[in-house]
Amino acid sequence: MKLTERTRIRNHPERAVPEESIEILSQGLVAHLGFIQDQFPYVIPFTYRYNPIAPDSIYLHGSIRSRALKHLATGAPVCVTVTLTDGLVYSRKAMNHSVNYRSVTLFGSAREVTDEEEKFDLFDKMVQRYFPGRTVGRDYNPPPSPDLGITALVEVTIEEWNAKARRGPPTGPDDDKPSTLGSAGVIELREP
Amino acid sequence: MKLTERTRIRNHPERAVPEESIEILSQGLVAHLGFIQDQFPYVIPFTYRYNPIAPDSIYLHGSIRSRALKHLATGAPVCVTVTLTDGLVYSRKAMNHSVNYRSVTLFGSAREVTDEEEKFDLFDKMVQRYFPGRTVGRDYNPPPSPDLGITALVEVTIEEWNAKARRGPPTGPDDDKPSTLGSAGVIELREP
Repeated sequence: MKLTERTRIRNHPERAVPEESIEILSQGLVAHLGFIQDQFPYVIPFTYRYNPIAPDSIYLHGSIRSRALKHLATGAPVCVTVTLTDGLVYSRKAMNHSVNYRSVTLFGSAREVTDEEEKFDLFDKMVQRYFPGRTVGRDYNPPPSPDLGITALVEVTIEEWNAKARRGPPTGPDDDKPSTLGSAGVIELREP
Repeated sequence: MKLTERTRIRNHPERAVPEESIEILSQGLVAHLGFIQDQFPYVIPFTYRYNPIAPDSIYLHGSIRSRALKHLATGAPVCVTVTLTDGLVYSRKAMNHSVNYRSVTLFGSAREVTDEEEKFDLFDKMVQRYFPGRTVGRDYNPPPSPDLGITALVEVTIEEWNAKARRGPPTGPDDDKPSTLGSAGVIELREP
């Protein structure tokens, strides 16, 4: 897992925040998975499991009929991007309108997790990722074996990554003083 | 712009909502752009301009140094996905935990918009997309020609698309009756 020429941020390099990758992946709700099939690019949204204590893997799941997951299970190269939208940035200069965001883009390859015990454990943790404190057996019934069998679980090993963020106020030349023009500033958004 | 074999929804086909594509694209904040470079898939987040009155195009912009936009301008095939996250779905059955969402996935190819007047007009509308009512000349200064020159604008012509949505309560067998297990239901999220 490392920064590479491919993940080097060329535009606004000062926005590179590789040290925040783990936090961004831990906070995100939806990962957009990119892969190639028949020479065409695909981008599909997935919920995911990410464990900051074992930060080199991200887990995706879905139906065993999923084209995306079947394709991943062959070890095909994938790109996964998680984006958090933090605010809308108003400037008094056209070009300096912007968005405050944090995002991680990672590259890796996948394998299917087939061991039933490992799947049970990972799905349990995935429920807890989205519903902290929710406990199998107490809050919901454990998955029976057939349910595990029809649900594909894929581990993407993260080989390269980087993160990028924009923060703070607008940066137009007149954004920090009173103006006869309209307002400048940031509208904070809270991404779920 | 049409449904195709490639955009046919195979898993949960009842969740296909192609008739909502325009609305979802109109509501989204961030588009995840997928493309292929050197045989590898890339997924990059972009803000975008989408006009429901001219629903066959989606516009992306960025620095003229952007690798993604340079690549798009060659007419390379692209996939764009916009996802709205509407709610977290709690079930009393492990497998029926879910997320309420709406998403559009589209395929197309791009061209660079180079005409200065067209760029001016599209950037103005893009500001209005994120900041409704904000008006060039009144609220902010119009972009000078050099600013337009260093900002690349790309039109993706949408050739194929589909939309998919999950809505409503959890669907586990015990989700609609009182239970000694934990709660079942939906936590609504409001995506900015």
